[in-house]
Amino acid sequence: MTGSLAIAGLGPGDAGLITPEVSAALAEATDVLGYSPYVARVPVREGLRLHPSDNRMELDRANEALKLAADGSKVVLVSSGDPGVFAMASAVFEALEAKPDYRDVVIRVLPGVTAMLAAAARAGAPLGHDFCAINLSDNLKPWELIEKRLRLAAEADFSIALYNPRSAGRPGGFERALEVLRGAGCGERLIIFAHAVTTPKERIETVRLNDARAEMADMATLVIIGNSATRRVGRWVYAPRRAS
Amino acid sequence: MTGSLAIAGLGPGDAGLITPEVSAALAEATDVLGYSPYVARVPVREGLRLHPSDNRMELDRANEALKLAADGSKVVLVSSGDPGVFAMASAVFEALEAKPDYRDVVIRVLPGVTAMLAAAARAGAPLGHDFCAINLSDNLKPWELIEKRLRLAAEADFSIALYNPRSAGRPGGFERALEVLRGAGCGERLIIFAHAVTTPKERIETVRLNDARAEMADMATLVIIGNSATRRVGRWVYAPRRAS
Repeated sequence: MTGSLAIAGLGPGDAGLITPEVSAALAEATDVLGYSPYVARVPVREGLRLHPSDNRMELDRANEALKLAADGSKVVLVSSGDPGVFAMASAVFEALEAKPDYRDVVIRVLPGVTAMLAAAARAGAPLGHDFCAINLSDNLKPWELIEKRLRLAAEADFSIALYNPRSAGRPGGFERALEVLRGAGCGERLIIFAHAVTTPKERIETVRLNDARAEMADMATLVIIGNSATRRVGRWVYAPRRAS
Repeated sequence: MTGSLAIAGLGPGDAGLITPEVSAALAEATDVLGYSPYVARVPVREGLRLHPSDNRMELDRANEALKLAADGSKVVLVSSGDPGVFAMASAVFEALEAKPDYRDVVIRVLPGVTAMLAAAARAGAPLGHDFCAINLSDNLKPWELIEKRLRLAAEADFSIALYNPRSAGRPGGFERALEVLRGAGCGERLIIFAHAVTTPKERIETVRLNDARAEMADMATLVIIGNSATRRVGRWVYAPRRAS
């Protein structure tokens, strides 16, 4: 018997941002896997097996999810935000590519509200014009590629969302990213630090990039750098629709 | 008496992708405004006034929403997808900037599942690595800026989501965008055409960019161009997490 695997996004934190589609998948699941803090957000009920795991175990977790589904379970693999944005969906397809045995597993990817959209909504509309999203973690790519992308994004005048700006294992990266952006002429741009967005610990702070300090971000922070036209109106920050 | 304005995203089409937060706002609203096809997705009930309007009326619609809220109504302004991504939120802040009288209106932006996330989920995980989003409409920006951004996005090896690739008023733009990307060395990249995603008319088609034709897209299509490592596994398309 072959089960199914739903790769689901729980949104940024607030239960009001979990889609009905994801809630329905969780209500029918026999097994839920994911990074511990995300599994802790799933409502407990009788008959539902929870399989929390550590960070950086993405490929092991993907393989376990596929194996459980191949053995007949109804599996939901949970990510924060959207599962396709710097989260578990790519890891599952990597695992699937390596294990042709699992090709018959019924897979669905269930989208969610990714952190940059929630952060943008709280700040105003800083992603209202063309933008890019860059993962600042250099665990899986060389730092030089990150710097190159930052420079090109500045040249393209994109608004820039930075995921995973800072962690204990990479203390200096975000500071270097700020330097690269200053060197690329972005010093006067607005930069938004959205910490723990949509949770009780939410904190939103906006400054000029020249005044930003690396300590303003941690791993629970989503950073958005405005484009050259991004501005304030009252307490809000937005990117005008028009550009020249 | 001052009312409130919620700028809300209805997601790409499927009711299962409307967040509970947005559904709650609609349940409490006295007035709903938006482009007609989006207002048509809002459940009708007694006492709810619907104000559908035409496309390209964004600033008028934003002003009307602010005026109704300032007069005491509980207004929800609806967009498809996420209201902050090429949608109504920026228009509201532009209107607010021009009319200081409305600064006391209580505004909330309610995020949603934007089209590229739903399209990516249906296709696999093509946005699993760094990416950008570009609106191909040149109504509010010069075409030269769009071409420049496409070239820089190709050089940065971003996956690229293209919103509004094609309309009756801009028949040639998407063809030129494909030419620019071929000229930038992206001919062998995968390109995904996600038409009317999550609706009964959904159709997903993936080809090499060299084999893409402009007619594969219309205004209901979200286009995603993979990065240089994006590949297929079975029926899925995904961006590997690792890059060199």
